[in-house]
Amino acid sequence: MPGLLALDWGTSSLRGALLDKDGLVTEERSFARGILTVAPGEFATVFEACFGDWTRAGASFCLIAGMAGSQQGWMQAPYCPCPAGFDEVAAQLSWVEAGRIAIVPGLSCINAGVPDVMRGEETQVLGAMQLLGKQDGLFVLPGTHSKWVRVRAGKIESFSTFMTGEFYALLRKHSILARSLPEADGEIVRPAFDEGVARALQGSSLLQTAFSVRTLSLFERMAAASLPSYLSGLVIGEEIGTQTLEPGASVVVIGSDALTERYGFALAQRGVTVERAGSQATWRGLWALAQTIPHKET
Amino acid sequence: MPGLLALDWGTSSLRGALLDKDGLVTEERSFARGILTVAPGEFATVFEACFGDWTRAGASFCLIAGMAGSQQGWMQAPYCPCPAGFDEVAAQLSWVEAGRIAIVPGLSCINAGVPDVMRGEETQVLGAMQLLGKQDGLFVLPGTHSKWVRVRAGKIESFSTFMTGEFYALLRKHSILARSLPEADGEIVRPAFDEGVARALQGSSLLQTAFSVRTLSLFERMAAASLPSYLSGLVIGEEIGTQTLEPGASVVVIGSDALTERYGFALAQRGVTVERAGSQATWRGLWALAQTIPHKET
Repeated sequence: MPGLLALDWGTSSLRGALLDKDGLVTEERSFARGILTVAPGEFATVFEACFGDWTRAGASFCLIAGMAGSQQGWMQAPYCPCPAGFDEVAAQLSWVEAGRIAIVPGLSCINAGVPDVMRGEETQVLGAMQLLGKQDGLFVLPGTHSKWVRVRAGKIESFSTFMTGEFYALLRKHSILARSLPEADGEIVRPAFDEGVARALQGSSLLQTAFSVRTLSLFERMAAASLPSYLSGLVIGEEIGTQTLEPGASVVVIGSDALTERYGFALAQRGVTVERAGSQATWRGLWALAQTIPHKET
Repeated sequence: MPGLLALDWGTSSLRGALLDKDGLVTEERSFARGILTVAPGEFATVFEACFGDWTRAGASFCLIAGMAGSQQGWMQAPYCPCPAGFDEVAAQLSWVEAGRIAIVPGLSCINAGVPDVMRGEETQVLGAMQLLGKQDGLFVLPGTHSKWVRVRAGKIESFSTFMTGEFYALLRKHSILARSLPEADGEIVRPAFDEGVARALQGSSLLQTAFSVRTLSLFERMAAASLPSYLSGLVIGEEIGTQTLEPGASVVVIGSDALTERYGFALAQRGVTVERAGSQATWRGLWALAQTIPHKET
């Protein structure tokens, strides 16, 4: 059996991994060739330039997760509605080249009458489910647009999006708070972060709590170097405060080490523990999906 | 008695009014000379250029409200702590020129251990109290940084700030939602605005509800021309959802006609009615303060 070429083609970056027949990653590559940098019609060329040597060396099958399946991507892959597990997702691949290159669909669901969507995170969750052997649970993918994903009986049942990372960046760079904050974020200042989380968990809105970054600075109640951590605590705390969480529960966090650590600190204030899924979730998800695809017997 | 020269010197604009001995406005002027456009040391020059003819014609006393009293203003006017009414504010004027030009102090208060501040809104509230003959009530000043002000027994007891207008602008101009929104806001689309308010009042966070601007657009569930009104409803609804309001209550809204109308629509969803304070609140507040100042007998 030839190896699998697994791609995570997002908005701002393109990552690829070569997996052997047991699903082990033998090589990884990363390029600053997110879909926003690729002109329409040029996706095949970029693919060949970045991974042509791997396909010629025998990686005859390629699965792609992420924004490559969006309107601005290589080929639009219609959303797969929730609930969706491995079978539903695998049954709805969009084939760029029959039997050779396929794009994994994103998922859609409806929350209180309003649609929500993801592209790429479904593959991370499916991979994390395999890595951790979990068929049920709450999975969190922190980031620019954080996703909270409910898994039940091996399927992604529903999810919701929080623009947490984007709000942080907006407030950090473009709001009046930017005047109080230092140029660089620096290392996390734990007491300030915790104070931000605690403030957010008191239940007001970020519309109100964000202004405290300015007043604490104005009255010299917090050092400038602590303010980015405090603001980070405010936005992450706001996201976490909105969730229905039982004390003593555990959630799976799939993200960078730095963000996973922050979510761990914040969730601890609600009595919730964190299980880490590791950085291989996407590759494992794509590999597991590849195992369920009928073409592979042809 | 000479007339009063009343100034509202804010961040981005400078407005002035000439009031006769009965407090009636005889003339008004507005300049794009907010404090951010004035170099340190140049405030007296700008004052003379904009209002010198009025002072020479007999307006020998000038009271200034707004950011002119901030660190970046003409002269720093220390905050007056709440509770504060006419007497407390008048006793704490900062004199730029003894007996002739004074700056009204902003107010400060503490909410759950965190300071909050205002500059200029205290004068509007004091003026609205006079105009409406109210010694008690909840006053709302919508805007970039909305203020909710609690008045009791003729004094401003406490207040809180919501960065509502600024969040709207950040999301409108700098976030991923900007891609879905049309260039101009256009007229308010009432059903979309109401839907935004209703969504916000369901109790999730703006971090989550804001993303629905994108998905409703993605699934063509709302016309692009309606999306700015929907987003406006989301942020104003979030602000209003945070308040403790009894159904059947009434609040005083001090702001532009357009914003006052929107707050009226949104508050109606909580069963609260709106009383308008009119656009003369600042002038009336400054005039009323002038009456309490001892210098005037000298």
